[in-house]
Amino acid sequence: METTERKIRVTLWNEFRHEKTNEAAKALYPEGIHACIGKYLAQFPQFEIKLAALDDPDQGLPDEVLNATDVLIWWGHMAHGEVNDALVTKIQRRVYLGKMGFIALHSAHHSKPFRAIVGTTGNLTWGREQREIMWNLLPSHPIAAGVPKNFLIEEEELYAEPFFIPQPNELIFGSWYEDGYIFRAGMTFLRDAGRIFYFQPGHETCPSFHNPHVLRVIKNAVLWTAPSEEKYEYRDECPHVVQNLAERIAAGKAKSNMTDPVFTELGIKD
Amino acid sequence: METTERKIRVTLWNEFRHEKTNEAAKALYPEGIHACIGKYLAQFPQFEIKLAALDDPDQGLPDEVLNATDVLIWWGHMAHGEVNDALVTKIQRRVYLGKMGFIALHSAHHSKPFRAIVGTTGNLTWGREQREIMWNLLPSHPIAAGVPKNFLIEEEELYAEPFFIPQPNELIFGSWYEDGYIFRAGMTFLRDAGRIFYFQPGHETCPSFHNPHVLRVIKNAVLWTAPSEEKYEYRDECPHVVQNLAERIAAGKAKSNMTDPVFTELGIKD
Amino acid sequence: METTERKIRVTLWNEFRHEKTNEAAKALYPEGIHACIGKYLAQFPQFEIKLAALDDPDQGLPDEVLNATDVLIWWGHMAHGEVNDALVTKIQRRVYLGKMGFIALHSAHHSKPFRAIVGTTGNLTWGREQREIMWNLLPSHPIAAGVPKNFLIEEEELYAEPFFIPQPNELIFGSWYEDGYIFRAGMTFLRDAGRIFYFQPGHETCPSFHNPHVLRVIKNAVLWTAPSEEKYEYRDECPHVVQNLAERIAAGKAKSNMTDPVFTELGIKD
Amino acid sequence: METTERKIRVTLWNEFRHEKTNEAAKALYPEGIHACIGKYLAQFPQFEIKLAALDDPDQGLPDEVLNATDVLIWWGHMAHGEVNDALVTKIQRRVYLGKMGFIALHSAHHSKPFRAIVGTTGNLTWGREQREIMWNLLPSHPIAAGVPKNFLIEEEELYAEPFFIPQPNELIFGSWYEDGYIFRAGMTFLRDAGRIFYFQPGHETCPSFHNPHVLRVIKNAVLWTAPSEEKYEYRDECPHVVQNLAERIAAGKAKSNMTDPVFTELGIKD
Repeated sequence: METTERKIRVTLWNEFRHEKTNEAAKALYPEGIHACIGKYLAQFPQFEIKLAALDDPDQGLPDEVLNATDVLIWWGHMAHGEVNDALVTKIQRRVYLGKMGFIALHSAHHSKPFRAIVGTTGNLTWGREQREIMWNLLPSHPIAAGVPKNFLIEEEELYAEPFFIPQPNELIFGSWYEDGYIFRAGMTFLRDAGRIFYFQPGHETCPSFHNPHVLRVIKNAVLWTAPSEEKYEYRDECPHVVQNLAERIAAGKAKSNMTDPVFTELGIKD
Repeated sequence: METTERKIRVTLWNEFRHEKTNEAAKALYPEGIHACIGKYLAQFPQFEIKLAALDDPDQGLPDEVLNATDVLIWWGHMAHGEVNDALVTKIQRRVYLGKMGFIALHSAHHSKPFRAIVGTTGNLTWGREQREIMWNLLPSHPIAAGVPKNFLIEEEELYAEPFFIPQPNELIFGSWYEDGYIFRAGMTFLRDAGRIFYFQPGHETCPSFHNPHVLRVIKNAVLWTAPSEEKYEYRDECPHVVQNLAERIAAGKAKSNMTDPVFTELGIKD
Repeated sequence: METTERKIRVTLWNEFRHEKTNEAAKALYPEGIHACIGKYLAQFPQFEIKLAALDDPDQGLPDEVLNATDVLIWWGHMAHGEVNDALVTKIQRRVYLGKMGFIALHSAHHSKPFRAIVGTTGNLTWGREQREIMWNLLPSHPIAAGVPKNFLIEEEELYAEPFFIPQPNELIFGSWYEDGYIFRAGMTFLRDAGRIFYFQPGHETCPSFHNPHVLRVIKNAVLWTAPSEEKYEYRDECPHVVQNLAERIAAGKAKSNMTDPVFTELGIKD
Repeated sequence: METTERKIRVTLWNEFRHEKTNEAAKALYPEGIHACIGKYLAQFPQFEIKLAALDDPDQGLPDEVLNATDVLIWWGHMAHGEVNDALVTKIQRRVYLGKMGFIALHSAHHSKPFRAIVGTTGNLTWGREQREIMWNLLPSHPIAAGVPKNFLIEEEELYAEPFFIPQPNELIFGSWYEDGYIFRAGMTFLRDAGRIFYFQPGHETCPSFHNPHVLRVIKNAVLWTAPSEEKYEYRDECPHVVQNLAERIAAGKAKSNMTDPVFTELGIKD
C-alpha cells in the first residue's frame, strides 16, 4: 500500500450502561467496552480513536463527529430502541455513500443501524454463557490475518443459528458451542459503496474484549471496512444524463442538476 | 415438484397514476401496468391474481390482503414518498419471515419497500428512452427459463451504472444501451428467509410489459420468489434456549417464551 | 411449474467396494449406497433412476448413459484415483454446458469430478464417528424444503473446518460435532450453466442414507440441480461474431462457424 | 497496514509470440506485453518484478521461480494448448494453498491455469476491435481504487456475454461495446486459500496496456491477490484428528501423520 499520512478515524460507540450498573461488567470493563477496545487500537499509529456513548449529548454522534468518522464500531444491547431514528438514517447513508465503514459487535446484530444497513431482522437464538470455539474459515482474507485456525473463548454468551441475515458476501468465521449449536460468527457485507463486518464475541460479562484474537479481528476489520480514499465521488442522488447539456440548459430545455452524457466524444445524437 | 392444489397468491401493486393522466401511458396500459401484467399471469392456473393501487383504501394493502399474499410485485415511480412507513415495515417483515416473495420492477429500485428490504439507496443514473439489449447471463437459472440469449427492447428508459445496491446473490440479466451505458438489470437477493428479484424494464410510456420475454421473466420470478411451503416455522423473535425448561418454568426460574434446548437427549447439564 | 411429462433422469454413481468387503457397510447397504438412495428416489414418479458403479464396464458411465443423465449423484471414497481422467473431463463438460446437475455426497469432496468441476482441493479435517447436529441455515431454499431447523445424526464421520473450497453460492447447512468441530455441510455452486450441490453425511459404516432428512435433502437437490429444459442452446465454443455474415461467407471473407451479430436490425456498420 | 520490508514478488508470464511476429503487436509492445506491464509495476518499490515467457526454459516457470512468486500474472492467447499440464497443476495448487495470487488478463480467460483454478470453460463470444467503455461497478473495492466511474478504451477486441464462468465473488467492472454487447469485465474469485482476479482488456494489437486506468487496475489487483503473510499454515492434505494422539501412537494405534484434536483441554473422551 502507498504510504499515507492520513489516519483512519475510528469512533467506538457503546451503549455504556451495563458497565455502570452490572458488577461483572464493571469489573471487566471499568471504563466501558469501547474504552477497552479503543485502548488496544490506539497502540497502532494509523488509527485515531474517539469514544462515544448513548448517554452523551446527541447520543455521542453529533454531525461533527459522525462526519469525521471513517469507521464506526457499534456495541449495543438493551437500549437499541432508544437510539434516535434520525441518527440511524444518517449512519446508514454515510455507510451507503462509502464514506464510513461499519462494524457491528455481538448484540449489535439487533441494533437499529446494523438492521437498517444490511437489511435484516438480525434474529438469532441465544442462551447461557459457555465455551465457544471460533473457527477461521477463510485464512486468506485480510480480516483473518494473524488469526489461528481456531481459538477457544472460555466463556461467551451462546449466539446460535438460525441467524436471520442476508447471505454474507464472505463468511470468515464460524463458531461451535458446547450445547450443540453453531453460528456464522464473522462475515462481511457490501452495501452500495459501503463495507460492513459483523463479529459474534463480546457479551458484557465475558472477557472477550481482552482476548488477543478477538482484538486482532477487530483491528483487521477496521482496516478492511475503512473507505477507499481513492474512489470516485458518489453523491446520494439519481442523476439524469442528457445530451448537449450546456446548449439545452441555455435553451431552457434542461435543468442544471442534470449531468453530461457518458462520453460526448462518442458523437451520440441528441 | 410435488403436485399441490395450493395456488400462489400474487398481488400486483401499482402506483397507478401515470396511466390516468399521461396519454402515452394510458394508451399502453389503459387499465394500469398492474392489470396488464396481471392479465398475463392470470392465464396460468397456478396463480391467483389480485390488483392493488396506491389510491385504494389502505393504499391497496390492508392486512387481510397483505397477509394473503405469497408474492408482492411492486411498481412505483413518482409517489414513493406517499407510501406509508408502517405499511413498508409490514411488507419488509413479511418478506424477512419468508411468508412473501418480493419483485421490484423498474423504478421500484427507489421505492421504500425495495430499499428497506435489501438495504440500499438504490441510486442509479437515468436518461432518455432508447434501444436496450437485455443479455441473459445465467441461462441455467429458473428465472431465465425460456429466455433467449438476448432480446431487444426497442424503447426503454435508460437505467445505468453505477447502480448502488448490495452485491446481488445471483446476477441473471445485464443490459446494453445505445448511449454507451450498461446496467445490472436482473438479480436476486436473499434476506433472512425471504427471496427478492429486481428487474429493469417497465417505464410507463414504453411497451415493455407487452414484451413476451419481459412477461416470461416476471412469471419465472413469481415462481422463484414464492415462499417455500415446507420450510420450518420462523417467528420474528430472538428465542432464548434454556436447559430443563419445563422444570425451570415450574420453579419460576424461566419464562414461558423461552424455548427448549437443541437436543435434550444430548444430556447437556443445566 | 408447467406440467411436464419429461422425467428427471438420475444416475447414482457409487464406488461400491466397501459394501462388498466391509461387514458394517454390507449390513447397512447390502445392495450398495447407490441402490439405497435410488430405492428412495424411485418412489417419486418424476424421477427415472439408473445405478452405476466403478467396477461396471466403462466405470459405469459409458457415453450412452452419461449423455442420458440429467443429474449425476456421486459417492466415492478410497478409489478416487482409479476414476478415468477422460471420464472426469466428460462429466465436467456436461455439467458446465448445463446438460447435467452434479451432487457430491460425503467423501466425494475429494473425488476427481467434484474437484475438477468446482475448482478446489476439497481438503478438510476428519476424525472419529460421532454425534453430528445438522443445522438448516436457509429455510427458504428449495434444497431445505421439508427439513426441520436442525436434526440429529447419531453417528457420522467427523468432517471439519477448515474445508478448503470456493466460497459457496449459497450455504444451506452447517454442522456441529461433539468433539468441538463445525463444518459447512451443504452448499450450492454455480459453474458456467451448471448447478452443483455438496452434502456432508454418508460414511459407509453409518446409517445416514436411511435418515429421512438426509434423503429429503438429496431429493430436493436433484430437483434443484436438474438442468433447465428451457434454457437457450449453449455449445462448448467461443463463437466469433461478424457483421453481414451471409454476404461475407459468400465472398469468402468469413467462415461458416462464425455467428451473426447480436441484432442486425441495429444497422451496425461492418 | 503495517509497514513491512517484504516485497511482493510478481511474475509476469506471457505467451510472447505475437510481439515477435505480428507488426502491430511488435509496434505496441516491442519487448512484450509482460515487459510493458512489468515496467509500470517496477516503479512501485513494494513490488519485485520477474518476466517469464512460454519459450523460456521450463516454459518460464521452473520450480525456483514459481516457488518464489507471490502473484502470477498470465497473458496467453494462441498457444494455450502448449502449456504443460504438470505446470498447470503446480500453479493451481500454489494458488489453492494461498501461497500465490493469480491474475488472468484478456485471452487468459481460456488459458489452462485460469480454467483449472476457477473451474470453468471460460467460453465467451468475441468479435472485431471497437470502442469499449469500462464501467466501475464497485468503487469501494480496493481493485477499483483510483479508477473513475468509467473510462473509454478507444479500441479493444470485443469480448461478450454470455461469458461462461462461475458466479464471481465480487463483480467490479462491466463493459459496453459499440456493437451491442456487454461483458462482465473484471471480477474476483476465491478458491480455497487463493485469491484470483480476471480483467478483460489487452488484445495484442490494442494499446490497452498503455492505458493508465488499465495499469492501475492491474497494480490494485496485485495488492489484492497477494497472499496474506499472516495466515495460518495450510498444507495440501486432509488431516485426521484423533484423541490422545501421543499415547495412541506409542501404542501403535495411530499414525504419526494424524493431528491432535481441536482442544485437548476440552477433556473430550477418546
